[in-house]
Amino acid sequence: MIKAKIVGAGGFGGVGIVELLTTHPEVEIKTLVAIESVGNPISDTYPHLKGFCDLVILPPSDPAAQEPADIVFMATPDGVGMKLAAEELAKGAKIIDYSGDFRFNDKETYANYASRIGKPTEHAAPELLPLSIYGLPELHRNNINKKTKIIGNPGCFAVSCILGLAPAIKEKLITTKSIICDCKTGISGAGKKPAATFHYPLRYENMNAYKLAGHQHIYEVEHELSLLAEEDIKVTFTSQVVPLCRGIMSTLYGTLNSKTTENDIINIYKKFYGNNGFVRIYPSSSAIGTQHVRGTNYCNIVISVDERTSRLRIVSYIDNLVKGQAGSAMQNMNIILGLPEKTGFDRPGMYP
Amino acid sequence: MIKAKIVGAGGFGGVGIVELLTTHPEVEIKTLVAIESVGNPISDTYPHLKGFCDLVILPPSDPAAQEPADIVFMATPDGVGMKLAAEELAKGAKIIDYSGDFRFNDKETYANYASRIGKPTEHAAPELLPLSIYGLPELHRNNINKKTKIIGNPGCFAVSCILGLAPAIKEKLITTKSIICDCKTGISGAGKKPAATFHYPLRYENMNAYKLAGHQHIYEVEHELSLLAEEDIKVTFTSQVVPLCRGIMSTLYGTLNSKTTENDIINIYKKFYGNNGFVRIYPSSSAIGTQHVRGTNYCNIVISVDERTSRLRIVSYIDNLVKGQAGSAMQNMNIILGLPEKTGFDRPGMYP
Amino acid sequence: MIKAKIVGAGGFGGVGIVELLTTHPEVEIKTLVAIESVGNPISDTYPHLKGFCDLVILPPSDPAAQEPADIVFMATPDGVGMKLAAEELAKGAKIIDYSGDFRFNDKETYANYASRIGKPTEHAAPELLPLSIYGLPELHRNNINKKTKIIGNPGCFAVSCILGLAPAIKEKLITTKSIICDCKTGISGAGKKPAATFHYPLRYENMNAYKLAGHQHIYEVEHELSLLAEEDIKVTFTSQVVPLCRGIMSTLYGTLNSKTTENDIINIYKKFYGNNGFVRIYPSSSAIGTQHVRGTNYCNIVISVDERTSRLRIVSYIDNLVKGQAGSAMQNMNIILGLPEKTGFDRPGMYP
Amino acid sequence: MIKAKIVGAGGFGGVGIVELLTTHPEVEIKTLVAIESVGNPISDTYPHLKGFCDLVILPPSDPAAQEPADIVFMATPDGVGMKLAAEELAKGAKIIDYSGDFRFNDKETYANYASRIGKPTEHAAPELLPLSIYGLPELHRNNINKKTKIIGNPGCFAVSCILGLAPAIKEKLITTKSIICDCKTGISGAGKKPAATFHYPLRYENMNAYKLAGHQHIYEVEHELSLLAEEDIKVTFTSQVVPLCRGIMSTLYGTLNSKTTENDIINIYKKFYGNNGFVRIYPSSSAIGTQHVRGTNYCNIVISVDERTSRLRIVSYIDNLVKGQAGSAMQNMNIILGLPEKTGFDRPGMYP
Repeated sequence: MIKAKIVGAGGFGGVGIVELLTTHPEVEIKTLVAIESVGNPISDTYPHLKGFCDLVILPPSDPAAQEPADIVFMATPDGVGMKLAAEELAKGAKIIDYSGDFRFNDKETYANYASRIGKPTEHAAPELLPLSIYGLPELHRNNINKKTKIIGNPGCFAVSCILGLAPAIKEKLITTKSIICDCKTGISGAGKKPAATFHYPLRYENMNAYKLAGHQHIYEVEHELSLLAEEDIKVTFTSQVVPLCRGIMSTLYGTLNSKTTENDIINIYKKFYGNNGFVRIYPSSSAIGTQHVRGTNYCNIVISVDERTSRLRIVSYIDNLVKGQAGSAMQNMNIILGLPEKTGFDRPGMYP
Repeated sequence: MIKAKIVGAGGFGGVGIVELLTTHPEVEIKTLVAIESVGNPISDTYPHLKGFCDLVILPPSDPAAQEPADIVFMATPDGVGMKLAAEELAKGAKIIDYSGDFRFNDKETYANYASRIGKPTEHAAPELLPLSIYGLPELHRNNINKKTKIIGNPGCFAVSCILGLAPAIKEKLITTKSIICDCKTGISGAGKKPAATFHYPLRYENMNAYKLAGHQHIYEVEHELSLLAEEDIKVTFTSQVVPLCRGIMSTLYGTLNSKTTENDIINIYKKFYGNNGFVRIYPSSSAIGTQHVRGTNYCNIVISVDERTSRLRIVSYIDNLVKGQAGSAMQNMNIILGLPEKTGFDRPGMYP
Repeated sequence: MIKAKIVGAGGFGGVGIVELLTTHPEVEIKTLVAIESVGNPISDTYPHLKGFCDLVILPPSDPAAQEPADIVFMATPDGVGMKLAAEELAKGAKIIDYSGDFRFNDKETYANYASRIGKPTEHAAPELLPLSIYGLPELHRNNINKKTKIIGNPGCFAVSCILGLAPAIKEKLITTKSIICDCKTGISGAGKKPAATFHYPLRYENMNAYKLAGHQHIYEVEHELSLLAEEDIKVTFTSQVVPLCRGIMSTLYGTLNSKTTENDIINIYKKFYGNNGFVRIYPSSSAIGTQHVRGTNYCNIVISVDERTSRLRIVSYIDNLVKGQAGSAMQNMNIILGLPEKTGFDRPGMYP
Repeated sequence: MIKAKIVGAGGFGGVGIVELLTTHPEVEIKTLVAIESVGNPISDTYPHLKGFCDLVILPPSDPAAQEPADIVFMATPDGVGMKLAAEELAKGAKIIDYSGDFRFNDKETYANYASRIGKPTEHAAPELLPLSIYGLPELHRNNINKKTKIIGNPGCFAVSCILGLAPAIKEKLITTKSIICDCKTGISGAGKKPAATFHYPLRYENMNAYKLAGHQHIYEVEHELSLLAEEDIKVTFTSQVVPLCRGIMSTLYGTLNSKTTENDIINIYKKFYGNNGFVRIYPSSSAIGTQHVRGTNYCNIVISVDERTSRLRIVSYIDNLVKGQAGSAMQNMNIILGLPEKTGFDRPGMYP
């Protein structure tokens, strides 16, 4: 069995990959590391894991936390993975990092990102950046393979926006200056740490826009779209939070370069994503919502054309904790370990 | 006391105006008419009204349903008010109609609207259209007054979009071809009739876009904005439903005609709405959400400028059942009866 | 105008009484005191109060916080009111305390209560206890009047249980050893402080029993029921939390002393509560839920008899933040100020 | 592969078993039958099944609906399974029926049940009743085996109550006249048919008791408990609905026959359920809620003793759609097909 280690095992992203790996036929979780709830089985803190994963969560200082693994998930915030990666690589591991640390594979691009989000612009391990690849297999399949050492797992909003816009950008369907990403997320995207704004009584009947000055995922959206367009793209991006737990709905707008029908665009999207198992394309008449991707690694994309204003409008749905996080991580893991991409994803979501 | 009649008293919009009028110091509800739950006190069907309004709901066929009133609320769908209005007017009433029947005051405009939503283009009472005014006092204060006979109460999405965009359009801040209205509504906007898509288990953890082919409120948004701009405006409009009960959050985008700061725009908005008691303007750093307008007649407007893309972004918040329906109706009523506009609106919302 | 001061103005209970008093015709809020968000208008922290109450929240150390008032609400946890009461009384105020500090009017009973909840058994102001009355007017109307100096406002669960059981106990319908209170509360009962267990993602699809070892409200339930029964009563009490914001549903069980019909019991309850404006009695066939009391000061009581097991079953519904807290406080205030009991309660709840 | 047919495939119970069987290693779904959405792939109506189960739903009149299967799930309401069972048995199938049709294996008991719920007392296939077994393996393991022809799958409330009370009854810990079942369910228990009482706006902030005159599951609770006690047991049973989707929390009360500690009772329960893989026992200090069983086949049971009143209090948690329905069905299927009981249950629930 392939051995997995999860650093940051106590957050939603860490528990998410634990849940997925418990049924993976080729991988066995060997080590859980975190800075909270240490010293107890993870199933004490997350009782639903009882009998599925009862490993004790180790503090980073525990020698057993340093045991080598074949694959290490860094389910950690910005700035952690870049410090731990070299040592794990030296022990033979491949790394999948959830943060922005390895989403940009040269130090200048990283510095630009870091300055945009108000962080120190110097990367702690710049020599590793060329080893990393942005973990969106639907765009970078040619470069994600058994030789890959580090995956920069994408941000949740970014997955929904990039998958929703990539074919339109690649095929130059829309003008590059016209792009607006209006994104709504469920609350689990904010993580497990309690805060007034996510306290049930203050959230159950409330929706709002936030971070209007700029969300940390904009940069990677623009970076990936610019690579596809082969020109510099800037987007208007609005992050909004609505009272559900799981789900992102990103409504994406762009002005059409020429008269094009919904059917034409559906065909372009289907062709673009032809061999990708986790993207589904729907016409505008479909009754698709976040509940249809909940608990799954799918991205459902609804295509519509507003003929009166010559705009393309894409609605992109994902589960922020699966395709937006742990699911993408396992999908990337499968590929870089040489396993079939869908291994371990053999179940539909739970409904309702 | 001024006598009020409510036709369509059994829906959310009818109950909403009953709730508001129970505490209005100058108006007394005298007659409730509906086609469901007839023959019983409204407080049997809506027990929270017990002791506040215990009038029996009359069927339209009951002679008592024809008693004259000073003000008649037509809390009814398209096509009903236009048939009943003439008779009520003849008995001396003023009319506030919730539907699209009187939102356009000439028959050609009505016909355009009707054809857009797939209804017969002929109005049942075209001679009454010139008596009607679009019931958004913040824009039409000069024309809504004691002489007004009929108010076409605006649509909920329309209120949020028009109030959010009017100053920008009027002051030519944004290009008229660039407008996008990305609108999210709570579920009460769909009314009280059960349907699969609003069945709790299918809705609690679900959000989705709907009516991508065109929502019935687009036309009045475009009509009002075109009047302000003195040119023909078309917008891209997306209706989306999210799992909360009350609240609309409309995120409105337009390309700036020239470099303008957030502060400049805040000042323009504050000046535009200076004398209007139900609009509040906030900077982009504010933590405002739908919960802050819930149960109230306020429209909270957050201003932001995306300098990187030269776009104005407005987030407009209302309670769809108050400022988006019954509250606007009572506000209009106050004005056309010659009462202070805020009469009966003397309480804050309930929190949390 | 009567002058009111609110200590602990920043919590749900403090905001609740602010909301209610903004529309009270005889009372004016003059002073807000709290230990958080001080120095800013309360409407900065609670934007829905903008224009209704914009007083600055003062820290206790501010001299203006010591201004005399006619009525002081201590919306504070156990142990605060008992320390502040004497000084406010000396300045001529009457006091309504939300905590357990004044729910028991002799020091022995207080000591028993305190020991049950693991607090120091000595009261900080035992000389004031004889001045206080348990603030449930439906039971203590004869003793709550213009001479009353201190009200011990009842606990939310206690209100629902005591009102649900009082007539049955008083009329000796059920055996005193058989009483079970199965209570479910919305989350606002836990206050505004964020905690993991009330974090939206961990609560939206979760219900659970808690404090199985003993809830702090049991003692006052038993104390009040024992007074009515003129014998010592012990109950089994289960506190449970379910994913809604406002509302308590207490299902109360007792073994009938003799064969009695639902109708008999309805009549007994109606007679018992005859002159009390905030209690409504319903038969078992009624479709009553917490939504029918939300935002109101009512207690709705549904009566049923399980003939097969000779048990009385009462379901008692309140809004925990109104009849369970701020509403009872204002009701008590009205009585001890000599105002009609329903003053300021002239509106139905909001629906839906 | 073992061939499965699902009759009533379009409801929550039908979709639930489809979801579970898609990952079952030994069983293949071959036939879906229903009376709604017929003629289309089930994944058109339930898009989350796309790629997992795309079989067309057949109407009962379709000859293909009569194809033989090894196991037939009757995910149908009372009165359907009893009419279809004989024919399926004749074709060699085993049957798992979700309704009350086969929960009582003689015609007199069935008649008693039917009369209690106001249905015709005559069973349509009384000759089949002796072939059926009540499908709670934790109690009837000795009688559920490869020879079993028909399983009467238990009701959701019944599972939670019976599992919570069985050891206490069997070991005579509590007096048989003292039992109260206070049960709360999520809304999915009501099925997928929209109704006013489950319309999101009327349910999101509402909880209530219902069917106070008697719920259809009481009879089987009493029947099973009476078998265990070897005497006639009657319980007081209260059904309540709270605003979440999945989950039952049943709080169960009984007067202790003698002084017993929580630890003693935990040991008794653990011994009783020793070999049963889907029951977990917790002390009263545990922080267990419905979220910990959501999406799983587990029943979590929390034990507490109220020493002051000498009462045992059990809180029993299940997912009403899994252990309360489709999960129990698959567990029963595994046993009667001779497969390991946990086959196909190899994943934890999704969290949060």
